[in-house]
Amino acid sequence: MSWTVAGHIGAEAPQITVADIPDVARGAAILGAGGGGDPWVGSLMAQAALAECGPVRIVAPTELGPDDFVLPVAIMGAPTVIVEKPPAGDELVRAFAAVERAVGRKVTHVACLEAGGLNSMTPIVTAARTGLPLVDGDGMGRAFPELQMVLFTLDGIPSSPMAMADEKGNTVVLDTIDNHWSERIARSATVDMGCSASIALYPLTGEQAATALVPGTLSLARDLGALVRRSRAEHRDPAEAVADHAGGRILMRGKVIDVQRRTVAGFARGTARLLGIGADEGREIELAFQNEHLLVTELGSDGRAGEVLASVPDLVCVVDVDTGEPVTTEAMRYGFRVTVLALPAHERWRTPAGLELVGPRYFGYDHDYRPIEG
Amino acid sequence: MSWTVAGHIGAEAPQITVADIPDVARGAAILGAGGGGDPWVGSLMAQAALAECGPVRIVAPTELGPDDFVLPVAIMGAPTVIVEKPPAGDELVRAFAAVERAVGRKVTHVACLEAGGLNSMTPIVTAARTGLPLVDGDGMGRAFPELQMVLFTLDGIPSSPMAMADEKGNTVVLDTIDNHWSERIARSATVDMGCSASIALYPLTGEQAATALVPGTLSLARDLGALVRRSRAEHRDPAEAVADHAGGRILMRGKVIDVQRRTVAGFARGTARLLGIGADEGREIELAFQNEHLLVTELGSDGRAGEVLASVPDLVCVVDVDTGEPVTTEAMRYGFRVTVLALPAHERWRTPAGLELVGPRYFGYDHDYRPIEG
Repeated sequence: MSWTVAGHIGAEAPQITVADIPDVARGAAILGAGGGGDPWVGSLMAQAALAECGPVRIVAPTELGPDDFVLPVAIMGAPTVIVEKPPAGDELVRAFAAVERAVGRKVTHVACLEAGGLNSMTPIVTAARTGLPLVDGDGMGRAFPELQMVLFTLDGIPSSPMAMADEKGNTVVLDTIDNHWSERIARSATVDMGCSASIALYPLTGEQAATALVPGTLSLARDLGALVRRSRAEHRDPAEAVADHAGGRILMRGKVIDVQRRTVAGFARGTARLLGIGADEGREIELAFQNEHLLVTELGSDGRAGEVLASVPDLVCVVDVDTGEPVTTEAMRYGFRVTVLALPAHERWRTPAGLELVGPRYFGYDHDYRPIEG
Repeated sequence: MSWTVAGHIGAEAPQITVADIPDVARGAAILGAGGGGDPWVGSLMAQAALAECGPVRIVAPTELGPDDFVLPVAIMGAPTVIVEKPPAGDELVRAFAAVERAVGRKVTHVACLEAGGLNSMTPIVTAARTGLPLVDGDGMGRAFPELQMVLFTLDGIPSSPMAMADEKGNTVVLDTIDNHWSERIARSATVDMGCSASIALYPLTGEQAATALVPGTLSLARDLGALVRRSRAEHRDPAEAVADHAGGRILMRGKVIDVQRRTVAGFARGTARLLGIGADEGREIELAFQNEHLLVTELGSDGRAGEVLASVPDLVCVVDVDTGEPVTTEAMRYGFRVTVLALPAHERWRTPAGLELVGPRYFGYDHDYRPIEG
C-alpha cells in the first residue's frame, strides 16, 4: 500500500487525506498498546481538520534536510478524561506556536510524539492547520505514559523548550534541566488544566529527526488498520493478521471479568482480569496499565500471579475478538471479548539504556524484561 | 529620614546601601503581616548582592515615565521551606530574564511584589545584579499568600507573562487567562520545584506602575525598622511606636502557648494560641495563618471563639514584646512573648472589589470585614 498521491504532474507527493484516517487511526490505536488515546475521537478531529484545510503532505524522515526544523505534538493527560474532553479548538496550534516563539525559529515539519488512536491524529490536525508537512515517524514506535519515554531521551535530546496549552486559553512554556523534570512539572500543570493538555516538545533539527524518529509509523499504522478491515471482510482473524504482520504473537483470547481503574496524578491507572475463552478456556490473565498496558501476568487457579507473559517495552495490545478494533485501557469494560496480543518493541528500547527508561522495573515491577519472542 | 544620597554633585540620586538593609528588612517583615519571608535570610541575600554589585538606585513611582517598563519579582512558596532553602544563585535573574524574553522588551526598573522580610529584599538583589533602579513601592502594601492578591488585579493588569525559576535550573513561563489561573498553575509548579521558586510577573508600563503600586513601601519599611531600633535603644515600647506611626493599634501582649502548623499545597498553614501577659493577663487569642496572618479571634474562658479582633485585609503583625523584632508565622514557637498589632490595610483593599479578592470570606471565614479602627 502507499499514500494517496497528488495527481498533478511534477508534484506527486504522498499525502494523507480524509479517506486515509479510519485505517491510520485504527492501526495507530493498536500500536498505542492500550494508550495513545481513543481512535474515534482522534479520527473525528483529524477528518474535520483535513476537510477544512485540505490534505497533509507526508515526508519520510530520510527526506529531511539539515535546515529543517521538526516539532512533535501530542495530547498529554489521563485518557479517561481526554476521551470526554478532547481538544476543542486551537490548543495544539497554540502550543506549537509557543515553542516556535521560545526557540525563535519557524518549524518546517510536524511529527508524532507517539503512536496512538488520538496521538497519531493530533500531528495530522496540527499539520493541516499550520499548512506544514508531516513526518512519517514517531518518537517511540508505540505509546508510553510519561514524557521522557521517547527515543530522543536516549539520544540526549532535550524536551525543552516545551509548551502546553489548554482549552481555556492558558499556555505554559517549560525549560527544564532534563526530560524527567519536564514530565514532573508538566504533569502537575496538566492536572491543573483539567487532566488534559495539548503539548509541543522535543524540537528537532532535520538531522536529529532523521536518526531519532522511528521511521514509517504512520505507514505502518495505515497498513495495520487496513489489514484489520480486510481480514474482517474476508472472515479471517484480524488479530492473527496483525501479529503476523508485526512479528508478534497472540497471548490469549478472553472475556473481561473485572476492571479496576483510578484516574490519579494525571494518569489512568488500573488492572483488568480476563478469563480465557475458546481454546484458552480455563486460563486467566491480568493486565496492569498506566494509560498504556505495562504487564500481562498468567494467574494460577488459586488467583495468584504466575508467569509474566509480556511486559514493557514490548507492546501489549487488546483488540475486539471479532472485529479486531483496538480497545484502549479507558474503554475496557466487563464483558468485552478480546484478543490480547504482544508485539515486539523497537530494538533500541531493548537495550540496557532503553530498559532503564521504560522497562518493567521503572514502573515498580520486580521483573526482568524478557522479549516476547523468547 | 531619607535614603543615602550619592555624594558627587549632579548625581544626587537616592540609593539603598548595605547599611540600609537591616532597617528595611525589619520594617518590611512587620509589613509582611507574618509572611513575606524571613528578614534575616533576606538581609543576608541583599547585603551580599549590594556588597558585590554596589548600591541600588531608588526611584519613586511618580518619577516613572511612559517609556519605562517595570517588573516585580518575589519568592513564592511555603515560608517554612524557603527559610531552609533560600535562593542560592541566579534564580531571580533567570526568572526576570525569562519575562523579558517572553515580552520581547528590556525591563527598565525592578519593583517589589509585596512587602516582607524576604520579598522586599529579593527585588534589591535583582536590581543589584541587573544594574537596574528599584521602584520604591509594592503591589500590596503588605504580603498576601496568593499571586492574584495584588492591587494590579483590581486594575485588570495581567500577571502574564510570568516566569518561575528554581535552584536546579528549571524555568517555567506562564501565559494565563487570568491571575487566579497563574496562582493555580504556578502553585503546583512551586510544589514540584521543592515548595519554593523565584518568580517575576505583572510586567507594568511606567504609567501602570505609577498608579497601581503602593508608593513608598521601601521608605516606610526603612522608617519602621529604624523606629523599632531607636525605640529599643531608648527603652520605649517598639510595638507602640510602630502602631502610632502606621495608624494601627495593639491587640494584645501575650505568650505563645500552642502552634499548629502544616506545610500543605505549597503553603504554611496553621493557628497559634496566645495567653495574655501583663495588663492582658486572663485573655486568650487565636491567630489563624496561611503564610500570612489572616484572622485574630478572642477566645472565651471556655476556649470557644469569640469576637474577631482583626482580619485580612488589615495587617496582623507579631513582634517580640521586648525587642520589637518581627516574628514570622514560620518562626513562631511555644514560649515566645510577643505583641500582636493590627495596622490598617491600603484603602483599595477595603473596597468591595478588594474585599472580594482578599477579604476574610475568600479565605473561608464566615466573617464580615470590619476595619481595625472601627
